[in-house]
Amino acid sequence: PETKLPKVGTTIFTVMSQLAAEHRAVNLGQGFPDFEVPARLVEALDRAMRAGLNQYAPAHGLPVLRAAIAAKTERCYGHRPDADAEITVTSGASEAIFDAIHAVVRQGDEVIVLDPCYDCYEPAIDLAGGIAVHVPLGRDGGPTGFEPDWSRISAAITPRTRMLMINTPHNPSGAMLGADDIAQLTALLRDTGIVLLSDEVYEHIVFDGARHESVLRHRELRERAFVISSFGKTYHCTGWKVGYCIAPPALTAEFRKVHQYNTFCTFTPAQAAFAEMIEAEPAHYEQLGAFYQAKRDRFREQLLTTRLKPLPVPGGYFQLVDYSAVSDLDDAAFCRWLTEHKGVAAIPLSPFYQAPPAGQRLARLCFAKNEATLDEAIARLQTL
Amino acid sequence: PETKLPKVGTTIFTVMSQLAAEHRAVNLGQGFPDFEVPARLVEALDRAMRAGLNQYAPAHGLPVLRAAIAAKTERCYGHRPDADAEITVTSGASEAIFDAIHAVVRQGDEVIVLDPCYDCYEPAIDLAGGIAVHVPLGRDGGPTGFEPDWSRISAAITPRTRMLMINTPHNPSGAMLGADDIAQLTALLRDTGIVLLSDEVYEHIVFDGARHESVLRHRELRERAFVISSFGKTYHCTGWKVGYCIAPPALTAEFRKVHQYNTFCTFTPAQAAFAEMIEAEPAHYEQLGAFYQAKRDRFREQLLTTRLKPLPVPGGYFQLVDYSAVSDLDDAAFCRWLTEHKGVAAIPLSPFYQAPPAGQRLARLCFAKNEATLDEAIARLQTL
Ligand SMILES: CSCCC(=O)C(=O)O
Ligand SMILES: CSCCC(=O)C(=O)O
Repeated sequence: PETKLPKVGTTIFTVMSQLAAEHRAVNLGQGFPDFEVPARLVEALDRAMRAGLNQYAPAHGLPVLRAAIAAKTERCYGHRPDADAEITVTSGASEAIFDAIHAVVRQGDEVIVLDPCYDCYEPAIDLAGGIAVHVPLGRDGGPTGFEPDWSRISAAITPRTRMLMINTPHNPSGAMLGADDIAQLTALLRDTGIVLLSDEVYEHIVFDGARHESVLRHRELRERAFVISSFGKTYHCTGWKVGYCIAPPALTAEFRKVHQYNTFCTFTPAQAAFAEMIEAEPAHYEQLGAFYQAKRDRFREQLLTTRLKPLPVPGGYFQLVDYSAVSDLDDAAFCRWLTEHKGVAAIPLSPFYQAPPAGQRLARLCFAKNEATLDEAIARLQTL
Repeated sequence: PETKLPKVGTTIFTVMSQLAAEHRAVNLGQGFPDFEVPARLVEALDRAMRAGLNQYAPAHGLPVLRAAIAAKTERCYGHRPDADAEITVTSGASEAIFDAIHAVVRQGDEVIVLDPCYDCYEPAIDLAGGIAVHVPLGRDGGPTGFEPDWSRISAAITPRTRMLMINTPHNPSGAMLGADDIAQLTALLRDTGIVLLSDEVYEHIVFDGARHESVLRHRELRERAFVISSFGKTYHCTGWKVGYCIAPPALTAEFRKVHQYNTFCTFTPAQAAFAEMIEAEPAHYEQLGAFYQAKRDRFREQLLTTRLKPLPVPGGYFQLVDYSAVSDLDDAAFCRWLTEHKGVAAIPLSPFYQAPPAGQRLARLCFAKNEATLDEAIARLQTL
């Protein structure tokens, strides 16, 4: 029989990383840092492994890690989730998103996603038998052009709507929800049975004194939400694949049914290491915004010496650039050309959309890189 | 709305491990070793981490690991799968089973499972919209009582049958498929569109000179099969959660669509470590059968000094015991009583069945333990 996922090919992140390797391009495509994991984390993992913590962790996560996540959540967002009944550790945020969707979405249920969005959302919805309903981001006067238009989202709600997925700070644009968005979202969901899924993996990478409006800060929202994060972006280790989901007990119970029979549990020594790191060095995540803001500012300054036009970046580690002064190619063709002929890999925005806006000329550059890497990329981009 | 998985509670492995901890019982329940990971593996993981292999691995797995799996498969089973098109690394065998089911099972498809079977099979089938069709194991004259009756399996096939799941060596019984089973299975599937899923995580734990009849040895079978294994059982690290799936290119393509949007990729440093270990110390897996056979033989000898009756164990690291001389409790109640009052945790067989056979008085004991652990368990079991 034909494929269950006719729309799915190899993800753009893999495609561009392979192309970057083939052409020895500076890889500003797939989002990952090229600098080192904090030393304490490496030492802590090593110690856990040598102490013999190598067998199955409890399916929901090591108790010390769940306790650390609860404490950190309280420090950051003023609300302490119950480590036993509300926190589940997963093999990365991807698994958590997949599990949350499979926990509640049934055949024929509609799930509202806001385009552009990360490319794992829709295939997971499809596999669960759901229907992804795409609503474009963008409202008049929004600083990045990727802020939600709540009236459009409201108009997309039907009696079949089971879930709404949001992502703040947003990949690929860096847009962040503000207090007003939270108010509108809260009003929108009130008196509905819609479950919220909030993907907050860039929670600590926020700039210019902005406050990350985690759904966990807001009682009415968090009581109906799966809030998903991970340690990969916060601790410079995207390949360690430890994420987690915070949800009220009833949603957590459903989530765990899926998780328990999907990956069951997650690499034990890393769980012990994150537990130690979170408690011992809260300064790490507290200072992460400043760390990345310096990179963002430097990179933007440099981009102004090229013919690429940088968009505002409120959060996250991606810089969108408008390349319309350089090329008339569509974004997929441009990113391919840039990688092959200019030696800089970037990610086109079209794979983040059901229907990419005609004529949009934007590419995504990851600035989670050492200065030398970014300098080399800029030198190449200056030849555009 | 009510739950999507009404039959699912907390898995018996978690329940019994928690009960064991509460009662300070010797935990022979959940299957995991209490001895150490091979030193080279720990050193190799450490080196990989310190060398900076901490970002996303390729979604399908590190090329060196896929190459090592291909070479090992050829050494063990005389067939070399294509590392690029036929091997995918996953976050444990559990994820691989979940992905394979989601890759091909659609709403209303039937999946034949052979009872008793591992408790993750049915929930994954349910979530994919499939229908688990349970066929009991057991045929006249089989050494363990858990060998397949192929005529019963044949009778369960319908036009809706999409998949057949097998497991050899078998959890919980240790039964192994023989050459004659392979011949009958091959004839059964010939000229059908049924996909085979072969769970072979205990592949290297086989006794008494028996040959593991991996589906990978048999061309006609492997051309329609997902063959799933992992490193947890082979390398004494059930908490490292690295597994893999070998399947022909067309099935692998479907499998990867799910995997890519489920966990995306797996903890990178462990992948590098397993690649090194497989190539550098093939003796480890070659001698694993002898290593565990010594444990099995010693443990069985000791069990003969108790009132528990050990069943034959052709493979795996579990010993079934008949406790009917000791108690008339059903198996769930007996295992709970044994944990609480005798200080030895065991796993009942009923959670492995849709309909447990009435009056069956069997419990599962894990012998992947140090001699001191098994000695202490035996001392407690002698008081029965
Ligand atoms: C899982 S590969 C993609 C990494 C990422 O989050 C991104 O580049 O957007
Ligand atoms: C994933 S916990 C169960 C471990 C296991 O394979 C077993 O005990 O059967």
